[in-house]
Amino acid sequence: MVVTTRTAERARPLIERGARWAESPAEVSAGALVVGVMVGTPTDVQAVIAGDGTGTGVLEALAPGAAIIDFTTSTPSLAAELATAGAERGVSVLDAPVSGGDVGARNAALSIMIGGDTVAVDRCRPLLDRLGHTIVHHGPAGSGQHAKAVNQTLVAGTMIGLCEALVYAHRAGLDPGSVLASVSGGAAASWSLTNLAPRILSDDLAPGFAVRHFVKDLGIVLAESSRMGLDLPGVQLADELYRDLVAHGEGELGTHALVRAIERRVPHR
Amino acid sequence: MVVTTRTAERARPLIERGARWAESPAEVSAGALVVGVMVGTPTDVQAVIAGDGTGTGVLEALAPGAAIIDFTTSTPSLAAELATAGAERGVSVLDAPVSGGDVGARNAALSIMIGGDTVAVDRCRPLLDRLGHTIVHHGPAGSGQHAKAVNQTLVAGTMIGLCEALVYAHRAGLDPGSVLASVSGGAAASWSLTNLAPRILSDDLAPGFAVRHFVKDLGIVLAESSRMGLDLPGVQLADELYRDLVAHGEGELGTHALVRAIERRVPHR
Repeated sequence: MVVTTRTAERARPLIERGARWAESPAEVSAGALVVGVMVGTPTDVQAVIAGDGTGTGVLEALAPGAAIIDFTTSTPSLAAELATAGAERGVSVLDAPVSGGDVGARNAALSIMIGGDTVAVDRCRPLLDRLGHTIVHHGPAGSGQHAKAVNQTLVAGTMIGLCEALVYAHRAGLDPGSVLASVSGGAAASWSLTNLAPRILSDDLAPGFAVRHFVKDLGIVLAESSRMGLDLPGVQLADELYRDLVAHGEGELGTHALVRAIERRVPHR
Repeated sequence: MVVTTRTAERARPLIERGARWAESPAEVSAGALVVGVMVGTPTDVQAVIAGDGTGTGVLEALAPGAAIIDFTTSTPSLAAELATAGAERGVSVLDAPVSGGDVGARNAALSIMIGGDTVAVDRCRPLLDRLGHTIVHHGPAGSGQHAKAVNQTLVAGTMIGLCEALVYAHRAGLDPGSVLASVSGGAAASWSLTNLAPRILSDDLAPGFAVRHFVKDLGIVLAESSRMGLDLPGVQLADELYRDLVAHGEGELGTHALVRAIERRVPHR
């Protein structure tokens, strides 16, 4: 395995376990059969995979028959563009955003949502099976990104409900443990309630998944839904609330820091 | 057991199993040790429990030492008022709203959220244990209603996320079964996703829990949160969307009919 990243220090644990360091994405790609990419934004994806036309991109450095798996949460339209650009060079480009966080990645328990060519997906599956436990091929290029948008839309609504509910409970003077006992077993149950409510109640707002990443994801959902002629007011509200966190310097906290944005609000009258 | 309800037909299964019919709440209450009440709105609660001062209410008909358990989802402030009025007559009034729906009620698997005097709660517990499997005493009168408000706030956010996500998935052309496989095992998981998404996907919008009841509950959450100086934009959005359903004659459908309100929306530009 050959690896690179902007902050070399972060690759050290892999190097110590036998991975070889390369100086650039292009150097990683030379001679590779499969290249995995996981970066920050669609702009980063474009730069790393497509490059600038002077040989800096993964796609330019790969031989025909190779495959790229982009694990970044990015836009369906960019995924489709890169798949087309790859096909022209005989390289398969799969979009494969993940859910499950740093814990899921460490435990190889990720949910991986895949879009792209079926033959390439089947060829990459043994590798994907080493990374996750829910590997679903959703359709052509971009479909994985759409599935991830669905995932983040679900999370957005649940997080709003969770944080408003806990702020209400606190203000009403309820005992948090008693409330969680009452609401956890029924129609209000969720992964977020089980996993994030205890952290909120102990004022542990460390990520998990950082606010600034979620803001990027919500922006993708809003752009895509608007493009499809949809109006999603819950995602819009989540976007507004999470941007309020970023504006208050809380972008590096976990998504459950949304309680702070709710606590800051005051009634209109 | 002595029972009454406005629509006598609905009591028939209980009568057939040995319950005795009474013509009014006051007649039910004469000689009773514990009276359970479950009606529609706070106004109904006021009418049935407090009555009109001419002997029509449960409270007026009970002897000192008796208890009233109000299972209705109502306001914390009314619960406190009725508990005070009861105390003046030596009658304990507990607020005990439930979660778990008609299925939970039939299977004695309700979550019951209780506010009121501890001695009375302990005295009623053997009876409550026959009705639910999660029986939590949250504190003084009104606390049970506050806990139920917390429950409905969680549900409101989750339902918005669920319905927006499924509308997005449909519009993006994703296969619903594949999407549910991808998102059900991780951070997007919820009771609603597991139990209501399949009904939405098969276009089964029957309640479960009816929209018009949820609108009543959301109104209580909004009134109480506003009284406490809180602004809960997610609950406000849910209230707006569910009122849209009522305005379209869909108040008798289940809460998951929220997909219809999302589908009807069009982008602002």
